[in-house]
Amino acid sequence: MSDKKKIVLTGDRPTGPLHLGHYVGSLKNRVELQRTHDQFVLIADVQALASSPGQHEKIKDNVLQVALDYCAIGIDPTQSTIFIQSLIPEIAELTMFYLNLVTVARLQRNPTVKDEVKQKGFGTNIPAGFLMHPVHQAADITVFDADLVPVGQDQVPLVEQTVEIVRSFNRIFAPVLKEPQAMVPAQGARLQGLDGKAKMSKSLGNAIYLGDSADELLRKVMSMYTDPNHAHVSDPGTVEGNVVFAYLDIFDARKDEVEELKAHYRRGGLGDTVIKKRLNEVLQGILTPIRQRREQLAKDPAAIMAMLLKGTERARGVAATTMARVRQAMKLVY
Amino acid sequence: MSDKKKIVLTGDRPTGPLHLGHYVGSLKNRVELQRTHDQFVLIADVQALASSPGQHEKIKDNVLQVALDYCAIGIDPTQSTIFIQSLIPEIAELTMFYLNLVTVARLQRNPTVKDEVKQKGFGTNIPAGFLMHPVHQAADITVFDADLVPVGQDQVPLVEQTVEIVRSFNRIFAPVLKEPQAMVPAQGARLQGLDGKAKMSKSLGNAIYLGDSADELLRKVMSMYTDPNHAHVSDPGTVEGNVVFAYLDIFDARKDEVEELKAHYRRGGLGDTVIKKRLNEVLQGILTPIRQRREQLAKDPAAIMAMLLKGTERARGVAATTMARVRQAMKLVY
Repeated sequence: MSDKKKIVLTGDRPTGPLHLGHYVGSLKNRVELQRTHDQFVLIADVQALASSPGQHEKIKDNVLQVALDYCAIGIDPTQSTIFIQSLIPEIAELTMFYLNLVTVARLQRNPTVKDEVKQKGFGTNIPAGFLMHPVHQAADITVFDADLVPVGQDQVPLVEQTVEIVRSFNRIFAPVLKEPQAMVPAQGARLQGLDGKAKMSKSLGNAIYLGDSADELLRKVMSMYTDPNHAHVSDPGTVEGNVVFAYLDIFDARKDEVEELKAHYRRGGLGDTVIKKRLNEVLQGILTPIRQRREQLAKDPAAIMAMLLKGTERARGVAATTMARVRQAMKLVY
Repeated sequence: MSDKKKIVLTGDRPTGPLHLGHYVGSLKNRVELQRTHDQFVLIADVQALASSPGQHEKIKDNVLQVALDYCAIGIDPTQSTIFIQSLIPEIAELTMFYLNLVTVARLQRNPTVKDEVKQKGFGTNIPAGFLMHPVHQAADITVFDADLVPVGQDQVPLVEQTVEIVRSFNRIFAPVLKEPQAMVPAQGARLQGLDGKAKMSKSLGNAIYLGDSADELLRKVMSMYTDPNHAHVSDPGTVEGNVVFAYLDIFDARKDEVEELKAHYRRGGLGDTVIKKRLNEVLQGILTPIRQRREQLAKDPAAIMAMLLKGTERARGVAATTMARVRQAMKLVY
């Protein structure tokens, strides 16, 4: 990897296998980015435990599932550095240093934190680790010297928090840290859930997983939310808010045909089954090769783990270099 | 060191050289404890930076000064493990795990934290690292498997917080962590300042340092607060609140003579200069050998640093053993 390539930091909390929402929102993009950037893909196991400590029984399997998903969709461990957060102590060390540069009040005002506190229903019982999450993430980003952080619009405040921390550090100690930039997708790449809810999500139970079998995929497509008033094939139907059309817009390359189908659906005479079958074919076309690669890779979990440990070793090397600069700046060199 | 010895965790934030208050309150005790316990003495450089990040320019020298003080008063690096906090990444890692087991509200209610927030005048701008301090300290204590933590009464809530975290961890994951106990000195061993204030402290400028020269010591004793109404030698004087007598009570082994002096002072006819000269002699007797050892050791700072690095190496070994148990319990073994 050339030194001239810009560095990207991305990743996921391993709370279970990844779904089509991840694929559209970030995974596909990573396959492109790894060709032109030095891409670090973080499997954030420490952060996965932060929101639900009881999850630890499944954590190792979840890490493996996520790594399988990565490799299956085409993130290439020879082009991207895929690694496990809890094996990089430098992230924890840097987080501890950064905690001195942020006030509790500032963290409590962070819009992403506020939203997530509401979502999780913590009330006033916010775990300290949860409130500290933006600081932990600032360490994730900066310890790998990232230039770019691909995030959804809702995560932009986390990158802004990182920039604030970097500026404080550079001012108080020495200018050794890089300011990262958020990289927000041009189009709103958030995928709706099967049920029509705004977001596909494991916890909402409305997701198509990258590892779903052909049958499961078919069943899920057939269960999709369309237009509740479209009772008979002959009735006119509504395209807006119809999940099948939303997916066809995203996944079906034959845009003209999709537009014709929409017109037909609107004036009546086009049944849900027809459009669902079409969507099923389109999605099977995308997911079958992914599923097959996934099944192939899943036969040798030891090889996947070895790949992760190799990526982690490279990541630690980079983290150690940054930490040497940080310690020098903080005069913590003994 | 025998495996049967109980483990003690103690230490200081290196914010400057240590003073007679530290000597009375904890250092002397450590010289005793190291004979009967496996004693870990933490130089908490990360925590020293937490309250005042601008201090980093002096941090390395402060660490060295504290280590000189330790060795000068008789903490023996062959009996105690003296080490530097920032060189133990396991402490940061464990802190990150513990942060998930404590709520922000609980930390805000911690009496020690509340007192210190008031003392430092943070107002609503409490650095996150400061609020997290009890969690960081819980990691300090438990990563070395400490049985006992010598603390002043005001620090007891910090040990209680540690016990809470240990219980949560052991319940959620597996019972691999030891519950520590606070070890509070029987007598109130807090030393007044030269000016009569309740506490000898660097920031109050009312301290006698272990490295003070004989002249400085004499000057400081002569400046001590006595009884402002004792204008003439012949006047009756007050013993209560009189710093010279408070010190004589603590440091002068000839208790009968001190009682006679008190009686004489009360009825009048005993000048401040006489009791101050006596106290000076007593303190010179204690501090001269300490100062001489300190000067001798200070000639070879490289040897002191080598001692610290050796202690740190042993401490890291113990920390790594604990972390292996912690990771096993959390299923973070890859």
